[in-house]
Amino acid sequence: MAVEDEMKANVLETETLPYIHKVGVPPKQSLFKEFKSRVKETFFADDPLRPFKDQTRGRKFMLGLQTIFPILQWGRDYNFTKLKGDVIAGLTIASLCIPQDIGYAKLANLDPQYGLYSSFVPPLIYAFMGSSRDIAIGPVAVVSLLLGSMLQDEIDHEHHREEYLRLAFTATFFAGITQATLGFLRLGFLIDFLSHAAIVGFMGGAAITIALQQLKGFLGIQTQKFTKKTDIVSVMRSVFSTAHHGWNWQTILIGAGFLVFLLFTKQLGKKKKNLFWVAAIAPLISVVLSTLIVYLTHAEKHGVQIVKNIKKGINPSSVRQIYFTGDYVAKGFKIGAVAGMIALTEATAIGRTFASMKDYELDGNKEMVALGAMNIVGSMTSCYVATGSFSRSAVNYMAGCHTAVSNIVMSCVVLLTLELITPLFKYTPNAILSAIIISAVIGLIDFEAAILIWKIDKFDFIACMGAFFGVIFASVEIGLLIAVAISFAKVLLQVTRPRIAILGRLPRTTVYRNIEQYPEATKIPGVLIVRVDSAIYFSNSNYVKDRIARWLIDEEEQLQAKGLPRIEFLIVDMSPVTDIDTSGIHAIEQLCRSLKKKDIQLILANPGPAVIDKLHASAITELIGEQHIFLTVGDAVFTCTPKVVDES
Amino acid sequence: MAVEDEMKANVLETETLPYIHKVGVPPKQSLFKEFKSRVKETFFADDPLRPFKDQTRGRKFMLGLQTIFPILQWGRDYNFTKLKGDVIAGLTIASLCIPQDIGYAKLANLDPQYGLYSSFVPPLIYAFMGSSRDIAIGPVAVVSLLLGSMLQDEIDHEHHREEYLRLAFTATFFAGITQATLGFLRLGFLIDFLSHAAIVGFMGGAAITIALQQLKGFLGIQTQKFTKKTDIVSVMRSVFSTAHHGWNWQTILIGAGFLVFLLFTKQLGKKKKNLFWVAAIAPLISVVLSTLIVYLTHAEKHGVQIVKNIKKGINPSSVRQIYFTGDYVAKGFKIGAVAGMIALTEATAIGRTFASMKDYELDGNKEMVALGAMNIVGSMTSCYVATGSFSRSAVNYMAGCHTAVSNIVMSCVVLLTLELITPLFKYTPNAILSAIIISAVIGLIDFEAAILIWKIDKFDFIACMGAFFGVIFASVEIGLLIAVAISFAKVLLQVTRPRIAILGRLPRTTVYRNIEQYPEATKIPGVLIVRVDSAIYFSNSNYVKDRIARWLIDEEEQLQAKGLPRIEFLIVDMSPVTDIDTSGIHAIEQLCRSLKKKDIQLILANPGPAVIDKLHASAITELIGEQHIFLTVGDAVFTCTPKVVDES
Repeated sequence: MAVEDEMKANVLETETLPYIHKVGVPPKQSLFKEFKSRVKETFFADDPLRPFKDQTRGRKFMLGLQTIFPILQWGRDYNFTKLKGDVIAGLTIASLCIPQDIGYAKLANLDPQYGLYSSFVPPLIYAFMGSSRDIAIGPVAVVSLLLGSMLQDEIDHEHHREEYLRLAFTATFFAGITQATLGFLRLGFLIDFLSHAAIVGFMGGAAITIALQQLKGFLGIQTQKFTKKTDIVSVMRSVFSTAHHGWNWQTILIGAGFLVFLLFTKQLGKKKKNLFWVAAIAPLISVVLSTLIVYLTHAEKHGVQIVKNIKKGINPSSVRQIYFTGDYVAKGFKIGAVAGMIALTEATAIGRTFASMKDYELDGNKEMVALGAMNIVGSMTSCYVATGSFSRSAVNYMAGCHTAVSNIVMSCVVLLTLELITPLFKYTPNAILSAIIISAVIGLIDFEAAILIWKIDKFDFIACMGAFFGVIFASVEIGLLIAVAISFAKVLLQVTRPRIAILGRLPRTTVYRNIEQYPEATKIPGVLIVRVDSAIYFSNSNYVKDRIARWLIDEEEQLQAKGLPRIEFLIVDMSPVTDIDTSGIHAIEQLCRSLKKKDIQLILANPGPAVIDKLHASAITELIGEQHIFLTVGDAVFTCTPKVVDES
Repeated sequence: MAVEDEMKANVLETETLPYIHKVGVPPKQSLFKEFKSRVKETFFADDPLRPFKDQTRGRKFMLGLQTIFPILQWGRDYNFTKLKGDVIAGLTIASLCIPQDIGYAKLANLDPQYGLYSSFVPPLIYAFMGSSRDIAIGPVAVVSLLLGSMLQDEIDHEHHREEYLRLAFTATFFAGITQATLGFLRLGFLIDFLSHAAIVGFMGGAAITIALQQLKGFLGIQTQKFTKKTDIVSVMRSVFSTAHHGWNWQTILIGAGFLVFLLFTKQLGKKKKNLFWVAAIAPLISVVLSTLIVYLTHAEKHGVQIVKNIKKGINPSSVRQIYFTGDYVAKGFKIGAVAGMIALTEATAIGRTFASMKDYELDGNKEMVALGAMNIVGSMTSCYVATGSFSRSAVNYMAGCHTAVSNIVMSCVVLLTLELITPLFKYTPNAILSAIIISAVIGLIDFEAAILIWKIDKFDFIACMGAFFGVIFASVEIGLLIAVAISFAKVLLQVTRPRIAILGRLPRTTVYRNIEQYPEATKIPGVLIVRVDSAIYFSNSNYVKDRIARWLIDEEEQLQAKGLPRIEFLIVDMSPVTDIDTSGIHAIEQLCRSLKKKDIQLILANPGPAVIDKLHASAITELIGEQHIFLTVGDAVFTCTPKVVDES
């Protein structure tokens, strides 16, 4: 076999003269070319212009148009089968979104119609510009809560309704701008800095916070008696302090009854996949039934709080309500940027999940532009921040959607609702909306994911729990901040304290591996082999140098204690060292000098292209000696210490 | 030879049955043990308690005392020879520091005596607690400028002298607290985040800014006519707008004459190492001569500005002047933290440089505690932030210092100066102080280092230039901010966009290397081998997955165009992947699933201990198949594709 022939050739070679491969120096690139390739890999890693290559001008224009409006692409293959699936899915998610929207608008301290508005315009825009086929667009619980809590910090929604609403539109506008800008500048990777673990914790915490907020409506506590804070301590204090006078048993009866119904149908849908639609329409059924009950029993006169009225008609324009000057611009920008990023995180996670399930490609940056455009238009048509909803997208997928047409169908149903039937919601009890929200957000608490995170990575678990407890004990923003901070700390830790392993030879091979992982690996007498497991940068260069020096001292002490020969060679396996900077070069230089004083020869094995380039540029290769840089650790051990190896 | 025997054994083995080493799974560690080892490696990487091991209690106490006060250790071997060297060095740096101190105090907008105070108490404290033998402690140009500029932003020093001084002591106090805390919590590695390149740029920019500030004294421009800003545009405008009426030719004559003298002696000292003392005492000679000239010619009556008076006597207590309550505490803390960090950076760089030149160990965290203690005591004895000075430390080293006793000698000389001869400085012209400062800071502009940085690493050069231009065109703080931001951006870029290389086999070996670095390496038909050059974390997991998928598409297109067989195996060389988190695990899982749909087998080669552990914990190994995880790429290629390899 070829490999064996080569092995034999190798052995023959070594018998006459060791066959040593030289470390390759990559061909010198011009500065501009290097810069270009780096920028390309950073911002255009996905090569978005690939389809435009070698096309005529007309075709390029068409492709460009299709890139901005993917509907032009998939619309051409649209057929009746797909339409059927989309209509069914659209009707299903519409029935789910109407009651949710009304509830979510309350979370954001807005009137119920704004929730419905946000389920009308944004899904339409998305259908033309988005490329996910399964996402269901509209207001979502977490973003509504975040927006409500951050807006309330700036303006009290009870006393300054008008300003509050204007700031909400301003924030929505800037959320859209942030999203579109990130996408356009191809900075989409920034949202990856919120790690999976942090999201799991954050979502879980937000779900509990939202559920706690619903206790107000669920128990029939009057708004003025309820805290405006969102942390668990304040909320529970509000709940218990009103236990004697503030609770309303009729409200609790209605709420609890339908909550049980909702949770039961949800379980049913989970267990029998073909009954998912029961869970999907259960909220609408609950609304209809409870509204009827209240209407017939006149329960609103016994303290059961009702929606009262939802403004009829479609979205009015809100262009003039957005703050473009004054103090509120900066505040709106800050709130919008945060809410926009969280909305992006949610939409991207959903988009990726379903794209990988159905195995189609999704361009993250393009998605961001679509979501941004949709929120910018939304902010001008009385909508607040909309994004992809976890629960509705899952229903959309299960109901058999094929394309974003399901969003158009949903949008049309919302339009009809706004035009025709909003007055019918007058007698809908608030308790039922609370029950619907509670049953919806429970799905955001992902115990299994948390357990898996604990099993895989303890540091991730800390980030997860930090976000979780931050949200429920402090506030949504603080939980978010903790999650980001812990995630960053982890990245910084990685680059500050890279692993440095001692290598030994695996018996009967010339393979050198970490002796902690392979206890059978043996050290070579007189030689210490270490491997640096990271790029050597300013953030770790001193550590790397000191750590290697300390390994050496440890090793020498042990050898001395055993009366074994001293170390003559220090081999540094540079395979994982992908890059080195000026601080790193200094560290290597200092290491080499201090080793020389101890009469130990520094040897480098397998430096990568960037590293060998910089070693040459800094003339360190001369200090170490070209002949002390090898292709593999095996070569290094073999050539430099024939005597030592012989004795082994 | 042993290696050859093994190679033969290996070949023999492969002839009968391929001898494949299993991937080692490290022994399971308890959670606590893992946590402990991680904390130890992060904060106690240098094993500071090592000497305390296996010692009696009395000895431990003594060692502890020696750790806090290293003088107890080196003081025992102190002898007359060392004393001689230290006295000479001490006298030399004293002659250098006295004029510098007076000038630097002006940079910080403080009266001249505060500069001298800061060269009296802090060096004494450091001599007892510090472990560097060569550093010369006292006020330094960059920290003085930074402090002056940040304090001036809060309080105007001309109209509120008292508050300004109090805030300066408060900032010094908090600088000390910051330094001591960082050292005590073993967070010393945080200062590594200011990269070497950023420091070079920052120092160069600060030197130019300081030199520009000296134009005021050098040209004899009156203070009220001169801008309080530090950027080059404002300063040059001030200088030229006063050209007709504001300049004083007598001042310029004295200043220029002595500047030439100072620069000449400096060059002389550089060229002939044994004449370094000429450069060292030149400032004092200039002060004496120029003072005499002014005194004799009554030049102060012709517009030559003089020091006028320096308060006689040693440091008064300033404990009661530090703000411990009120608004200024937070401001003092902010300024102190920034100034303290910069002071640390400078002291650490000096300490490391000389320690590696004389080859002794320096515990960075211990040094920080010493510097912090010295500044805390300093803030209570009318000193402002002191640290190690580049220029004076170099002189100290060249004058033959042996221990920190040279600092004590210097301190005594400053004491005598304060008690006896301050009145003699009355007629010292400000221009001479400006000339001394200009000649001192010129050494901070390190062209050679900047050129080397350009050669080695272009990204580092951007950081360097960003800091440089930030300091000279905006302000010291903004320059600092730019330097830190660019350094961080680099770290984030590294963890967000790791290199992913395609590997090929080097001819006549079983070594697989990056085909860009080794153009002679050949791809194996039907197999794509990629290597991920970084830990796979949330920040890069999506990129890694997508990038690998894109390599695959590229490769398949090429193969199709050439009519070659399709890819059946994707081997991912995990050698450089030191760690993986839950997001990374998800990415691998998604990659594996999408490959399965394309009928391509995913194979992992050489996962490290942390990775194999987490692959097992997440049960991904089952998805990939245990038999598809190999020790080396060679094994993987050999075992999985015997047919394919045969054909090659």
